[in-house]
Amino acid sequence: MPEPLRLGIAGLGTVGTGVVRIIQKHAALLEARCGRPILISAICARNRAKDRGVDLSSYVWEDSATALARRDDVDVLVELVGGDSGPAKAATETALASGKDVVTANKALLAHHGQALAEQAEAAGRVIRFEAAVAGGIPVIKALTEGLAGNQMHRVMGVMNGTCNYILTRMESAGLPYDEVFEEARKLGYLEADPNLDVGGIDAGHKLALLASIAFGTQVSFDAVELEGIGRIAIEDIRHAADMGYRIKLLGVAQMTGRGLEQRMSPCLVPADSPLGQLQGGTNMVVLEGDSVGQIVLRGPGAGEGPTASAVMSDVLDIARGTRISTFGLPAAQLAMPTPAKAAAPAPYYLRMTLLDKPGALAKVAAALGDAGISINRMRQYGHADTTAPVLVVTHKTTRDAIDHACRGFATTGVVIGEPVAIRIEAV
Amino acid sequence: MPEPLRLGIAGLGTVGTGVVRIIQKHAALLEARCGRPILISAICARNRAKDRGVDLSSYVWEDSATALARRDDVDVLVELVGGDSGPAKAATETALASGKDVVTANKALLAHHGQALAEQAEAAGRVIRFEAAVAGGIPVIKALTEGLAGNQMHRVMGVMNGTCNYILTRMESAGLPYDEVFEEARKLGYLEADPNLDVGGIDAGHKLALLASIAFGTQVSFDAVELEGIGRIAIEDIRHAADMGYRIKLLGVAQMTGRGLEQRMSPCLVPADSPLGQLQGGTNMVVLEGDSVGQIVLRGPGAGEGPTASAVMSDVLDIARGTRISTFGLPAAQLAMPTPAKAAAPAPYYLRMTLLDKPGALAKVAAALGDAGISINRMRQYGHADTTAPVLVVTHKTTRDAIDHACRGFATTGVVIGEPVAIRIEAV
Repeated sequence: MPEPLRLGIAGLGTVGTGVVRIIQKHAALLEARCGRPILISAICARNRAKDRGVDLSSYVWEDSATALARRDDVDVLVELVGGDSGPAKAATETALASGKDVVTANKALLAHHGQALAEQAEAAGRVIRFEAAVAGGIPVIKALTEGLAGNQMHRVMGVMNGTCNYILTRMESAGLPYDEVFEEARKLGYLEADPNLDVGGIDAGHKLALLASIAFGTQVSFDAVELEGIGRIAIEDIRHAADMGYRIKLLGVAQMTGRGLEQRMSPCLVPADSPLGQLQGGTNMVVLEGDSVGQIVLRGPGAGEGPTASAVMSDVLDIARGTRISTFGLPAAQLAMPTPAKAAAPAPYYLRMTLLDKPGALAKVAAALGDAGISINRMRQYGHADTTAPVLVVTHKTTRDAIDHACRGFATTGVVIGEPVAIRIEAV
Repeated sequence: MPEPLRLGIAGLGTVGTGVVRIIQKHAALLEARCGRPILISAICARNRAKDRGVDLSSYVWEDSATALARRDDVDVLVELVGGDSGPAKAATETALASGKDVVTANKALLAHHGQALAEQAEAAGRVIRFEAAVAGGIPVIKALTEGLAGNQMHRVMGVMNGTCNYILTRMESAGLPYDEVFEEARKLGYLEADPNLDVGGIDAGHKLALLASIAFGTQVSFDAVELEGIGRIAIEDIRHAADMGYRIKLLGVAQMTGRGLEQRMSPCLVPADSPLGQLQGGTNMVVLEGDSVGQIVLRGPGAGEGPTASAVMSDVLDIARGTRISTFGLPAAQLAMPTPAKAAAPAPYYLRMTLLDKPGALAKVAAALGDAGISINRMRQYGHADTTAPVLVVTHKTTRDAIDHACRGFATTGVVIGEPVAIRIEAV
């Protein structure tokens, strides 16, 4: 009779409940697949009284995740509490110190403390697995860490925040302004308690930093991700982009360059008919590029009970099968400290600004672009009824530095009102 | 100092050479990732004199794959010989009997002898891994066996023969007939020595049978795959399909139904703007659907030196890391013998036939369809210059049985020349 693998589940929100449901529904199937029973010993959650639609009566309730992590009848802590510090961090550290493996969906925790936790896990001979932390149900951590382990990776890209993609998709399909769709998303429960985690690109940035660490063998360096959220994208930007055959996506790109590790998470224009451009609503897509394999594209649901619980179970079953892999694919001590490199690969840019409707205003803008060494592909001033005029510019290939230079130039013209919107046009 | 993992590589064609190249180029990276050096002890191939562009001088040459499989300094046989019997089978059996693990790219061998080999491997405490056998560089075996192991799978679909997809794509883009593009493909070296393996759907059918075994926990049953090749697809079919917003793909579908396991590999019409419809040339796509995860789509290069060698290395590195997984995801004794079920899910069908240009001919065709219980969505007789007339029918949803019934009916009308082409229109 093989030993069961005994879980302690901390956090019974959507994902935790989904994990319980899978274990109850597929007990025999899971045991057949990994060769041993998967049991839940104990659970904890903030609200004990809440009806979650699953029978929790046979599990021990603990009052804290840390107490759960310490229990003798728990082999694996399943950390679904969330948050980059506090109870999630304490419970994870306690579990490792108590000789338990950890499965987590917590991208924030690993983005901020991944290196220290990986070191602690290795010193204790334990593993931390986090398939559910990135791109929901898509087995992308496994694909990258194991499936493409024979490759030197060149680039990793992805649309990995379903809420942002929902907002951008919905703005286009319904023709609604950002603020209105943002409110819709809030009412639908799509937004984090701190919405800036979503729309500020932070959540997606966490995920990108984790992928970059695995892809390039570097210490997680979330602080080096160039972050830009979607809050400044206006319905006009979406319309102009569509007119030119593009869609706007919150796109993450990480690549190792001669100057260092480039990581950016920002709105980009991508061709409307490309796989990334066609991504609707909450679906995620990750693109992995390696020296032998070329390009692999993975698409699937980026959130939700079933998909995220599916990812958690993949890690649980791996542990049950005896698979042991370093947290970020390399022993923690071998992860290099990356040199952050600002995005330098040239690309065309989309610029939108508002001009004072005065003679010579457009000429001043054009001159500022010229001073920055930027050549213009298209420029258009739209019809207008008041004293200001919207202007749209699509540049030839240039750098972010040159764009920033031009924007500083615009500020001195006296005719550009507010800050221009600058969006990179990414070839994907 | 960790023990190295020592490989014996049988077969030095494109893939074998690619594997050698990766091991030589990335020795340090591979060792860091799996914690031990990956060494090549010995190799064998038909032609020892051939210049493969890699330095093979430090490896022992064996005259036969079986002798290689028996060597004391080999821990893993990498079987890249190919073929469903002969040396590949003998070497695999010898390796297992000699206590070695096996990594193979050989779909034919496993499609025909998968159950017996899985049983032998388990009895010997060894593993057989075959990521490279299905969909080239896409880590689909890993995604299904491990990444989605928490799911009861519903359906697996895929375009998994790059040569067929090349031929169909090229017929459409260049407006060339099948025979001409077939010859092109042969000259480009895209076709197997026996081209029917490609264009007859056999190679893709092998792959589908392997995926179905893992997805549904059943013994590999390639003989039960309903196979139909692309040889009868004419340029007119491609044009008619395009006119209606479809593309023709050699599509595999496996699903477990109440009546048993349905497996079919056949040309299908899929929407031109769907991910499957947009697949060009040699790119493969696999769609995996499970009860928790929903739908995951994987896309990537289906063949070629780099991608296939990347998949081989994934298996090698897993073995080096100590990962041990049953061949088809379950212990061989637990794999159920599936009941084959003929495709019964109703779908619309595309029918093309040639009529004798006689009064009442079209009415006879319509009557035969009515007799089979098939209702017509669209029917069109094309202009023509001789005594025959091409006719195109798109049916409402019906079954393959009803279509076969109608085709038998057509044969008795005396006005239908030759055999009609019937292609399922798949909702994807």
